[in-house]
Amino acid sequence: MKVTVSATLAANEDIERRRRAGERVVNLAFGEAGLPVHPALRRRLIAASGSNGYGPVAGTPDLRAAAAGYWERRGLPTDPDLVVSGPGSKPLLYSLLLAIGGDVVLPMPSWVSYAAQADLVGSRPIMVPPPPGEGGAPDPDRVRSAVLHARAQGRTVGSVLVTLPDNPTGTLANQQTIRRLVQLAEELDLTIISDEIYRDLVHDPDAEPLSPATLAPERTVITTGLSKSLALGGWRIGVARLPDGAHDLRDRMLAVASEIWSSPSAPVQQAAAYAFTEPPELTERVAASRRLHGTVVQAVYERFTAAGAVAARPQGGFYVYPDFGPLRDRLGVATSSELAAVLLDRYGLGVLPGHAFGDEPGELRVRVATSLLYGETTEQRLSALNAPDPLVLPWIARALDHLAEALEHIATGGVPRRALNHASLIPTVAAS
Amino acid sequence: MKVTVSATLAANEDIERRRRAGERVVNLAFGEAGLPVHPALRRRLIAASGSNGYGPVAGTPDLRAAAAGYWERRGLPTDPDLVVSGPGSKPLLYSLLLAIGGDVVLPMPSWVSYAAQADLVGSRPIMVPPPPGEGGAPDPDRVRSAVLHARAQGRTVGSVLVTLPDNPTGTLANQQTIRRLVQLAEELDLTIISDEIYRDLVHDPDAEPLSPATLAPERTVITTGLSKSLALGGWRIGVARLPDGAHDLRDRMLAVASEIWSSPSAPVQQAAAYAFTEPPELTERVAASRRLHGTVVQAVYERFTAAGAVAARPQGGFYVYPDFGPLRDRLGVATSSELAAVLLDRYGLGVLPGHAFGDEPGELRVRVATSLLYGETTEQRLSALNAPDPLVLPWIARALDHLAEALEHIATGGVPRRALNHASLIPTVAAS
Repeated sequence: MKVTVSATLAANEDIERRRRAGERVVNLAFGEAGLPVHPALRRRLIAASGSNGYGPVAGTPDLRAAAAGYWERRGLPTDPDLVVSGPGSKPLLYSLLLAIGGDVVLPMPSWVSYAAQADLVGSRPIMVPPPPGEGGAPDPDRVRSAVLHARAQGRTVGSVLVTLPDNPTGTLANQQTIRRLVQLAEELDLTIISDEIYRDLVHDPDAEPLSPATLAPERTVITTGLSKSLALGGWRIGVARLPDGAHDLRDRMLAVASEIWSSPSAPVQQAAAYAFTEPPELTERVAASRRLHGTVVQAVYERFTAAGAVAARPQGGFYVYPDFGPLRDRLGVATSSELAAVLLDRYGLGVLPGHAFGDEPGELRVRVATSLLYGETTEQRLSALNAPDPLVLPWIARALDHLAEALEHIATGGVPRRALNHASLIPTVAAS
Repeated sequence: MKVTVSATLAANEDIERRRRAGERVVNLAFGEAGLPVHPALRRRLIAASGSNGYGPVAGTPDLRAAAAGYWERRGLPTDPDLVVSGPGSKPLLYSLLLAIGGDVVLPMPSWVSYAAQADLVGSRPIMVPPPPGEGGAPDPDRVRSAVLHARAQGRTVGSVLVTLPDNPTGTLANQQTIRRLVQLAEELDLTIISDEIYRDLVHDPDAEPLSPATLAPERTVITTGLSKSLALGGWRIGVARLPDGAHDLRDRMLAVASEIWSSPSAPVQQAAAYAFTEPPELTERVAASRRLHGTVVQAVYERFTAAGAVAARPQGGFYVYPDFGPLRDRLGVATSSELAAVLLDRYGLGVLPGHAFGDEPGELRVRVATSLLYGETTEQRLSALNAPDPLVLPWIARALDHLAEALEHIATGGVPRRALNHASLIPTVAAS
């Protein structure tokens, strides 16, 4: 078995170890939303603390009805019987790969766990880059040739996956790309898996992301969860919306679910059922989170590009994906893994190498997550959430200054880590 | 993919559908512990309701240290670094099958999900009956020949599994059987997976179950959880104790865990960390649960044997596994599946066919779970837990009467369901 611990989770644990050992590290590696639980959700969890039955494998009727309503408000009429919940969208994606079968076409780069899950289920990921300047959806023209090539070799290709908006690039695939990809999925008879866990964190509140499910409801699965929009990653809850009429796929998915995880935690299901009804107190929280994520990630994006790295401007979520190619000579590194190691060891910047996301090893791209900059305490994080300008909060300003200083050193010739640490007395910012 | 929804979960959902449709069914199908959450655990969950970080894949240090202490109090010194938690022991078992690799030797019959999980990971279960009159551990002599036969055919056999005490038979493997099995595992170089989730529910408080980990700590994995002893099934938490020095196995297991489920729900981990310290308020609860389970399952066992079915007397947990072979002529059924259908349709008794547990289809054995007889409300269930004689509580007495009446009808010649329902005005007892 070639799979290793999820790169994101492993990097986070490594950074935490360094912090405990006294190193100063700005944690830009981990995609945890970095914000507190909304009190209304705590109240719902508390009210459900006596709930200890397993309940239905697919999740409680309340949760499935609420999730159906969530999608209906986004223009997608949804049968609650075709909603399946799980302890995170990660296990739902795993069960989908098992239930759909065949190889899966993935964007290159894409979230670390898609390809690793494909390996685990004995499927092969077919990595296809997005159209230039985009992220999250493989280039339809290249998908066609890749699928036809794989099929000509006797392989079964069952699905194509998109991430809207994207992790790691932070970008939103063009609507035209999605339309072409949907046409192609119809032509090639592929199920589309649309991971929309960052959908409610598209920065422009007027932007209306185009889900493939709108265009091809009969062949699109949407997965989402509350880990990002409501910062409930550690609670472990996700939901999937299966294609219209896909009762066979549902049965296969529930078969897998029943043998691997049984059901999501019952108290969490009850809180999630409330969350998916989208009461104003929670939509306001999501809106505030979206503003904060957008503000900070744009500022970070600007620090990277100011220093000479190249990146697409983030459109959603809390990631930026800078390319250090133009600074290659100054860095003296040949791969993104070496780059990430140098950024961590010399500059105290914890990021993930693009290679972990399936990018070519020699491309000097790294994924930068900005959501752990909001503070180390609930108080700091709430201040960030409510600040008219979060960038002037001292702990965020110091982290940005550390980042800018490090990048400037890189742009003008690297300095050893000790000198940097000595010069910038920044606090450690990392996952709680 | 041939796997279908877990037989236990599917049966429970079927029975619930029948109840909602107005049918009277005594739910003897589902292994949910049927007792309320202890208030101390609710308080811990409530206190942790703000906890939303993913945390380490293996579980928090507190949880792992507490679980290590739990095992140490059972004579098994445990390195917290070799403890891995998961959202239930079910996903831990799944990840173990993936991480150990090869085929797995299972007792026949055994819990429905072992073989189904083996199918999912592309391994083949090798079903071996226990020594006569026992359950939960495959007969060592037959294991030897089965493994040698499989290996002679080029198969890889990686592990052998025991369930102590057993589901579905409710029995505890003899210590001599365990000793012989451990010797054999050493001889054949098999990892032993010891599912001890019912360990604290052995009815005789003086009995000291012999774990294979005591005899062969270097090759035994123990899994357990809080679903049975503390009725937290719906919360989803389990822990595994890996073999001494098995850091490679740990790494492979965490790799799987990180790609499938990330970590158990954070608030649940905190409550579980408290539970595994075994404070007196919780050991008293476990003791009261053990007494209740033992009293009711013994009473149910006696109803079955009084009617002419044959069963081993349960020694732990809340299951009995009667064999209707002696009543075959009266029943007019050829398989355990037909038997279970007749018991449900004609007599309002929801049980699971032995075939679901890997038993020969033609053997007329069914698994009877008694833990949902304690009541439908928290009040009833607490009354059952605290009653000097739970069997005289009206709702338990009525269910036992219904059962005895149905079995007497079977023993003396079947009657149609309507007549029975008309004659016995029993309440519906089922999962909440």
